[in-house]
Amino acid sequence: MNIKITGTGSFIPSTIEKNEDFYNHEFLNADGSKINSPNEVIVKKFKAITGIEERRYIKPELLNSDIAFYAAEKAITNAKIDKESIDYIIVAHNYGDVKHDSDQSDTVPSLASRVKHLLQIKNPKCVGYDLLFGCPGWIEGVIQANAFIKSGIAKRCLVIGTETLSRVIDKHDRDSMIYSDGAGAVIVEQSDEEGGIIAHESATFALDEAHFIYFGETNKPESTSQRRYIKMYGRKIYEFALTNVPLAIKSCLENSGYGIKDVKKILIHQANEKMDEAIVKRFYKLHDMDMPEGIMPMSINTLGNSSVATVPTLYDLILKGKLDNQNINKGDIIIFASVGAGMNINAIVYKY
Amino acid sequence: MNIKITGTGSFIPSTIEKNEDFYNHEFLNADGSKINSPNEVIVKKFKAITGIEERRYIKPELLNSDIAFYAAEKAITNAKIDKESIDYIIVAHNYGDVKHDSDQSDTVPSLASRVKHLLQIKNPKCVGYDLLFGCPGWIEGVIQANAFIKSGIAKRCLVIGTETLSRVIDKHDRDSMIYSDGAGAVIVEQSDEEGGIIAHESATFALDEAHFIYFGETNKPESTSQRRYIKMYGRKIYEFALTNVPLAIKSCLENSGYGIKDVKKILIHQANEKMDEAIVKRFYKLHDMDMPEGIMPMSINTLGNSSVATVPTLYDLILKGKLDNQNINKGDIIIFASVGAGMNINAIVYKY
Repeated sequence: MNIKITGTGSFIPSTIEKNEDFYNHEFLNADGSKINSPNEVIVKKFKAITGIEERRYIKPELLNSDIAFYAAEKAITNAKIDKESIDYIIVAHNYGDVKHDSDQSDTVPSLASRVKHLLQIKNPKCVGYDLLFGCPGWIEGVIQANAFIKSGIAKRCLVIGTETLSRVIDKHDRDSMIYSDGAGAVIVEQSDEEGGIIAHESATFALDEAHFIYFGETNKPESTSQRRYIKMYGRKIYEFALTNVPLAIKSCLENSGYGIKDVKKILIHQANEKMDEAIVKRFYKLHDMDMPEGIMPMSINTLGNSSVATVPTLYDLILKGKLDNQNINKGDIIIFASVGAGMNINAIVYKY
Repeated sequence: MNIKITGTGSFIPSTIEKNEDFYNHEFLNADGSKINSPNEVIVKKFKAITGIEERRYIKPELLNSDIAFYAAEKAITNAKIDKESIDYIIVAHNYGDVKHDSDQSDTVPSLASRVKHLLQIKNPKCVGYDLLFGCPGWIEGVIQANAFIKSGIAKRCLVIGTETLSRVIDKHDRDSMIYSDGAGAVIVEQSDEEGGIIAHESATFALDEAHFIYFGETNKPESTSQRRYIKMYGRKIYEFALTNVPLAIKSCLENSGYGIKDVKKILIHQANEKMDEAIVKRFYKLHDMDMPEGIMPMSINTLGNSSVATVPTLYDLILKGKLDNQNINKGDIIIFASVGAGMNINAIVYKY
């Protein structure tokens, strides 16, 4: 039995927030001190490191679960399946539904229940749950779907990665420019076709790394609000990722039985362009190779870092022919990989 | 291969909140109107329906993930295992970590990562994630652990149900008296011993029922705060549960191959004593039987409804001999069952 992704869909929010839109922000260091550069210089440096020119935000009237639903609808249509035949709805996210004028995460009912409601699926045996695993949540959802199918409790699963980071950013923090909103969804099911999920690998580093990405207060010192926002220790994450992600991908590839030269694409969580390049370069260096041209498709320049949504969105864009000079062909070996809050790392070797 | 629970642990918070402690609360109807009864009468009626005399709250300095850790430590000790041998940490909850003076849910990093950090587990291959599935989350976590073990990606899992509902209650809502804090944990692993998980069943009813339990504003009309709290349509939930839970348990028992007379105990999520009794009575009625004396152990009278924590806590109390006139013996067939936000229902037939 093979387990394959048979349909994809994504939702790209319509509001474009350009780097120039941050020129009038009051950016401060984490200790509240002023940054001795004009915003134009801060933004230029930010662009050079992350590759991000613009990002997407959802409209005020939308919620995380709404965009998850839009992506899910497209994946179901694309897979040409009856929605009533879905056994599991797995929704990976991190902050739940946060209304545009609220600081509260709403996760009751689960986003999976909300999506199931919006899809108007009647079958009660279609079980929906939410999975919190940091940015690698969508890949982990695919790994869980794979386990459910292998163990015989499911045949067909809808796996969604959805996030609205625009609702949890501190506008006084330069890192706020990284974050974006988006949703990607896939149908994972057992299949008689060749290919599918060949190998996977997951890890949680929590001894020293658990709080590298955390919920913290604003950088604005005179603020009396106790409201907390997404925060990260960028330098520590960079070093952690560069040390551990190439090894995890290497281990996953070894388990797959395929060799480095079989790999046609690496779809890595788009956290930061320079970091992703450094990871993939080091992965090839572990195999005494240079990183091949075009091996790592990117959409971060215009879509930013939408957490759990970056990998499924990127995959959907490539398959639908919406990413210039990028395509995936029958029989291609591709790798999905991610790193994020937890700190969690995972990878899948997949034969298209 | 059998899959068994080999260790249990629970954390019962030390602060006791008695029914009399609610005498000075200003209870209001959902529409903000006054309730035409003195609080003593409201509380007496509440006690008659729910069976709750007192409930437990955690101390201000504690968090949901802290009590999850305390329960987990006990389960690991009870199972006599090396913590480094755990493959998965699955933490079921619904509201994350909510500080005592905050309205924000903190779920980044996941509670599983926090628990793993507190347990000081080094092995990165021990993968931690959070599962949101309403009150049935802990049972669903056991079902997921079962699937992981069956599919070959795990041998040993730590499954925790942990909740601090005291941090999300509206003091102007009579339903606030239901909710409690607590954590329960188990080790689930493959075993050569006889017994273990025989059958399981899960369902999500989201067409009409998705928002029966939801996040809503205070009953106090003049409040300008947009802060939201746990809210429910009690009557609708009661009717829904009474219709669907007995059928789900019956279906699970049929799949197990065991008969109604083999069942020695039913450990049902303790939402409300009268509702639980009505569910179990109807389950027996479906088999043309009266509900046997002592079949449904309860701890709700003193522990309240701690969501995902009620079932594993109850199981732990019975096994440790801490519940009067209740015990489980080798070879006993027991049923775990739950219903809650989503609306989700699940059940496990288990041979001790």
